[in-house]
Amino acid sequence: MVQNSYYSEADHGPFKTVNLGPFELEEGIILPGLNIAYAIHGSLNLKKDNAILVPTWYSGTSKIMETVFIGEGRALDPSKYCIIVVNQIGSGISSSPHNMSVPFSMSAFPKIRIGDDVRAQHILITEHLDIQELALVVGGSMGAQQTYEWAVRYPDMVKRAAPIAGYAKNTDHDYLYAQTLIEAITSDSGWANGEYSHHHEVKEGLKRHAKIWSVMGFCTEFFAQECWKTLGFSSAETFQTDFMEALFTQMDPNNLLCMAWKWQRGDVSRLTDGNLATALSRIKAKTFVMPIDTDMFFKIEDCKREQELIAGSELRPIKSLGGHLALFGFEPSYLEQIDTHLKELLSL
Amino acid sequence: MVQNSYYSEADHGPFKTVNLGPFELEEGIILPGLNIAYAIHGSLNLKKDNAILVPTWYSGTSKIMETVFIGEGRALDPSKYCIIVVNQIGSGISSSPHNMSVPFSMSAFPKIRIGDDVRAQHILITEHLDIQELALVVGGSMGAQQTYEWAVRYPDMVKRAAPIAGYAKNTDHDYLYAQTLIEAITSDSGWANGEYSHHHEVKEGLKRHAKIWSVMGFCTEFFAQECWKTLGFSSAETFQTDFMEALFTQMDPNNLLCMAWKWQRGDVSRLTDGNLATALSRIKAKTFVMPIDTDMFFKIEDCKREQELIAGSELRPIKSLGGHLALFGFEPSYLEQIDTHLKELLSL
Repeated sequence: MVQNSYYSEADHGPFKTVNLGPFELEEGIILPGLNIAYAIHGSLNLKKDNAILVPTWYSGTSKIMETVFIGEGRALDPSKYCIIVVNQIGSGISSSPHNMSVPFSMSAFPKIRIGDDVRAQHILITEHLDIQELALVVGGSMGAQQTYEWAVRYPDMVKRAAPIAGYAKNTDHDYLYAQTLIEAITSDSGWANGEYSHHHEVKEGLKRHAKIWSVMGFCTEFFAQECWKTLGFSSAETFQTDFMEALFTQMDPNNLLCMAWKWQRGDVSRLTDGNLATALSRIKAKTFVMPIDTDMFFKIEDCKREQELIAGSELRPIKSLGGHLALFGFEPSYLEQIDTHLKELLSL
Repeated sequence: MVQNSYYSEADHGPFKTVNLGPFELEEGIILPGLNIAYAIHGSLNLKKDNAILVPTWYSGTSKIMETVFIGEGRALDPSKYCIIVVNQIGSGISSSPHNMSVPFSMSAFPKIRIGDDVRAQHILITEHLDIQELALVVGGSMGAQQTYEWAVRYPDMVKRAAPIAGYAKNTDHDYLYAQTLIEAITSDSGWANGEYSHHHEVKEGLKRHAKIWSVMGFCTEFFAQECWKTLGFSSAETFQTDFMEALFTQMDPNNLLCMAWKWQRGDVSRLTDGNLATALSRIKAKTFVMPIDTDMFFKIEDCKREQELIAGSELRPIKSLGGHLALFGFEPSYLEQIDTHLKELLSL
């Protein structure tokens, strides 16, 4: 356990935390008390059929999901829906390497899989919130991995699914990309095999990690058209130092490594002996698969191959100059497209 | 100076080396004796108008240029043309950090710019080989940077130009990408600020560098369609370890850093007070700009913006599943397209 003021309710809240008690992970370890942090916007109706689940992406928390997805007049309108944002394990808000006590702290934090998150969320939703039906599960990137896992694992419960910029089964290319992020951190001698005493000891590794994100996370046109200007920066260099590096150097290295390991191994076909077609054929949700056209690692072609295995699904690509990190929602046109597709999906 | 048997004539030759004597670099340092290694295929005709120059790309040497570009019946046919392949400074074959003596060895090797290479090549061509006209300059990646520099710097001498998968002025995105490659190496404590005693001391950094190349150097479809099979590998993992890591861990870290620094700063507008349009308007060569459609960092859109500033030029995109490293020439269809375009260009 290390101190890190970044993971506070002031920055990421408001959120509630539920302790699910002992939780057996897919990798065989039992966590004695798994904490899941979540936020609810809006209210459940009497029929309990207006719940929407939004799982988080890599390094994101409920706060940014709220900004990007939720608002009056938007598709995820809290006056109509009960929107539950759930922070993934390792996010720094739910149980994570940096906030656990011995013997599960830091380098001893066990490996987590997407399936662990989704099973934990299922307990939260069904037992703690007493909700048996989800009108929609929608998430970007690792949130898309969780969305697919939900739709395959609990097909009768998920009525609609919108995986944005993510895969049901991760690709070799994406695995390698995440590996470069991992090694940017673990190559820092300050990481000390996960036993640093403050995340600033891994600052250089976190900066390298931020640079690789800049290269792969946006796209060439983002830089060619100087889109960082719309984010308030005066040069590509200050965008890199004052936004990307400033953002990631606040975070806990072990938390990021926990999520990256999980991201690399996201694969719904683990539920069907490795057969992806069989896994995706289980889905009963009306599904819009929404890749971002300029995304450098979750490509339309790869998403389309998965979408075609889902009965009744539609491919709904999003146009953007932001690449994968269009997810941050800095383009009004991106938000409009997301809302248009999600409103249509929710009307079906 | 460190020993490295990789940079031998056995692996990269045959080549000749010319010592150009004292050479003043753009950054102000005078190298006392600049060696340039080159290989010639075919013979100069009586009119001395059949010379073709092929500069090398990052980490490539004359050997692979020969394999990829030159052959009987191909566009660069040594029975018709006098084809001169010139190894860039820092390549390990020409003067480079690893093969220089004190006081210019290793970390003390000065910064090199694309303009230094092209001025040195100009001396080689005009004074040592007594050639005053180039029928074609063609190169990929950093070879494209040198091609543009040649066409802008010596417009009367270059009759045709074919920059493949590279920019006249490097972009912010590409600068950042090269920076991640640099930091993959310099983050290795074995690098020791460039004063390692053997390149194997930097093996982990070179492996990280190889991984980042795998992510950005190919493309998602290369992995999705398992194109590594055509290269003789049984999995994406063995392709990574036995090809990419095996390749780059043979190389000298300081050599790679020398080339990466140069790559980041390639910019023909240095010749025209920062005005790219003015620089490219100097070009008299008939120019085919040849981006690769799946290239993740030298994009068609960016290449097109430059191509449109070159009078009479044409954009000739290459279709490939290889991404940037289609340059390696492992696809027959890639080689066919290159030959088709270059034959047409040479006929103009």
